[in-house]
Amino acid sequence: MSKKDKLSTEPYKGVRDFYPEEQAFLNYFIATCKGAVERAGYVEYHASVLEPAELYRAKGAQNEELAGEQTYTFEDRGGRMVTLRPEMTPTVARMVAARRRELGFPLRLYSIPNVFRYERPQRGRLREHWQLNVDLFGSRSPAADAEILAVAYGVMAAFGATEEDFTIRVGSRPLLEELCRELGLDEEKAAKLRRLLDAKNKMEPAEFSAGLAELGVPEAALSPAQTPADIARMLEMLKAMGMGNVVYDPAIVRGFDYYTGLVFEVFDNHPQNNRALFGGGRYDNLTELFDSEQTPGVGFGMGDVTMRDFLEVRGLLPQYRPATKVYLAVPSPELAPQAQVLAGELRRGGVNTAVDFGEKKLADQLKVAAKHRIPYCIVVGENELSSGTFVVRNLETGAEESLERSALAQFFTNL
Amino acid sequence: MSKKDKLSTEPYKGVRDFYPEEQAFLNYFIATCKGAVERAGYVEYHASVLEPAELYRAKGAQNEELAGEQTYTFEDRGGRMVTLRPEMTPTVARMVAARRRELGFPLRLYSIPNVFRYERPQRGRLREHWQLNVDLFGSRSPAADAEILAVAYGVMAAFGATEEDFTIRVGSRPLLEELCRELGLDEEKAAKLRRLLDAKNKMEPAEFSAGLAELGVPEAALSPAQTPADIARMLEMLKAMGMGNVVYDPAIVRGFDYYTGLVFEVFDNHPQNNRALFGGGRYDNLTELFDSEQTPGVGFGMGDVTMRDFLEVRGLLPQYRPATKVYLAVPSPELAPQAQVLAGELRRGGVNTAVDFGEKKLADQLKVAAKHRIPYCIVVGENELSSGTFVVRNLETGAEESLERSALAQFFTNL
Repeated sequence: MSKKDKLSTEPYKGVRDFYPEEQAFLNYFIATCKGAVERAGYVEYHASVLEPAELYRAKGAQNEELAGEQTYTFEDRGGRMVTLRPEMTPTVARMVAARRRELGFPLRLYSIPNVFRYERPQRGRLREHWQLNVDLFGSRSPAADAEILAVAYGVMAAFGATEEDFTIRVGSRPLLEELCRELGLDEEKAAKLRRLLDAKNKMEPAEFSAGLAELGVPEAALSPAQTPADIARMLEMLKAMGMGNVVYDPAIVRGFDYYTGLVFEVFDNHPQNNRALFGGGRYDNLTELFDSEQTPGVGFGMGDVTMRDFLEVRGLLPQYRPATKVYLAVPSPELAPQAQVLAGELRRGGVNTAVDFGEKKLADQLKVAAKHRIPYCIVVGENELSSGTFVVRNLETGAEESLERSALAQFFTNL
Repeated sequence: MSKKDKLSTEPYKGVRDFYPEEQAFLNYFIATCKGAVERAGYVEYHASVLEPAELYRAKGAQNEELAGEQTYTFEDRGGRMVTLRPEMTPTVARMVAARRRELGFPLRLYSIPNVFRYERPQRGRLREHWQLNVDLFGSRSPAADAEILAVAYGVMAAFGATEEDFTIRVGSRPLLEELCRELGLDEEKAAKLRRLLDAKNKMEPAEFSAGLAELGVPEAALSPAQTPADIARMLEMLKAMGMGNVVYDPAIVRGFDYYTGLVFEVFDNHPQNNRALFGGGRYDNLTELFDSEQTPGVGFGMGDVTMRDFLEVRGLLPQYRPATKVYLAVPSPELAPQAQVLAGELRRGGVNTAVDFGEKKLADQLKVAAKHRIPYCIVVGENELSSGTFVVRNLETGAEESLERSALAQFFTNL
């Protein structure tokens, strides 16, 4: 085949390949999220990336950010319209409605699905990303709102962020609606105001001010002198739980139709990147799409790409370490079976061990181990096999240690 | 909204919802696979479920099981044909070809992706399943073939299967081709023979015999008196590695075009379910689709649904345990903030703790904890808070233990 007949090695446009180093970050993201939310009593669920398209078209489920052209929707061979989920909340609402009688409330659920949006790839906004979703169903209590904020805070803390790094800004859909009524805005203008507020951080301050002026909304209406009493009580509750970086911000609105109460965004405090990292809110009517009885919910979603950027800027990304601890180099193919036997001993001793097949020069085998970032190497040669003494070499420092065969596994499990 | 206007709570046809108990099995499947393959030096990669459709249409990448109508393929808004991956091998070949110069060989990779096939749902063959994929690139050595068989064996062992439970049947594409030449079968008849052999376990013995007769293939040709020398050597190597259930079976063929050498299937020995659980083989030409230089590969794929059936029949499925260890029940909403403080103490002590908001009767709160299968409960009432002594109740046995507040976390971490 000539070169021009070859298929491209690029992934599909706007999605990522995860080579071991990228996968290690995704695994770190997943493990850190899991640890933080399971500590707070959340249990994991999951669903297929394929959902009936109706799920995102029903009134009340629409997302102002997600107009029709921004989802992957296609017709299957059976004539069904299918969507690659753009977000997880409609799915979890569907699942909860399906088993409302059996599930038991309050119900704490989390998932870390991939979600799809059909849009131009740009920093932090690929066509596919992974997203922690945390939801608490079955309580209208402000204590449930406070818990969700505490879980969001706990996830940030688990990644190593401190209160100096981020601020949780809390708004309220009912208070925003009240404001719209006071200002005499009709539903069309109210929706425009919501979209303007949601886009605030993506535009110049002058553009934002002009937008407000056009709607006849005085800027002062969005920065009131005092925090409403119920939100003040919640902020007190959160302070007692040790959270000092939660503030009221009436301009927080979120781009989803289905929010009915609390809305919030976690803001990056970095001066060059002062934007929302993620957010969430209360949606008390969403299960009504499926079910005659309401199950109130409150939750949030947090993406891997945004979090990676946040951690990278602060030097909080963990260093890559492969799962493999030691590489067995083999001077010739004839010794490969004996290297396999030693590998078996190490593995039974709990050590993740890779073995060369002895088809290349030893020096090249060590280069392969170093390329794979495997921290240790052992040469399995005639002398080593007959003497029963092996040299463990640290491939980063070059340090070497001679050990009896029977002591090898222990050396690694003690590291 | 009247009942008939409600959206269905069913997932899309042929895919599954994973409620916490189903998700716990998927997590067990993933963790068990990871543990077994990382022990053998494999590192994790991943990719998007979306792939360019060409990947499955190129000559040499086709899968006889996967004719065009069995993949999910659609056109995106940019006119690109996109496929939901039906298998992972073309993806990993693409990724390896893309970075051949940097990766370093032998290269051991694994992934546990979801894969899609458009087919009628039936036992063990849903439209979406998860699949462990293990691949070893860069060696043509029989030792590499032996290693892949050993990894497949190791995965079975990690799930608790013994040699009585399964047999690894090994075939050879070159030997099958040699047989076809000896029998004078042209390419069309050879392809028919491959399809017949691949479908052998899905048909009656009489139907299979009739198929052979039609092609003019004597049954004896497929059960030769002796094992070819190179396969016999490999079986010896595997025996030395402790594997006694690997046999030669010239009728093993696998339904993928791209296999070039070893092919194998892991068979369930259960008398009522004597079928292939999973399989794999050697594909030395696949990266040529993308790259002027060949990178030989050998690997296998193993699905979650088949493995679940295998484990279920043998009573090897693990019991469901939620990640949550203890539920704090709260006699009234006013005590919820104090319960949150105790929950914070337990969580900092490493205990996964869920808290009620005190909106229901205590007895109903305990029922919720039991529904969620949380093993322990503590009532956080006025008396307990003032005395500093709390009763830890085992919700399965009813056993109770009184403990000082400061000893609670330790109680759970010692379990």
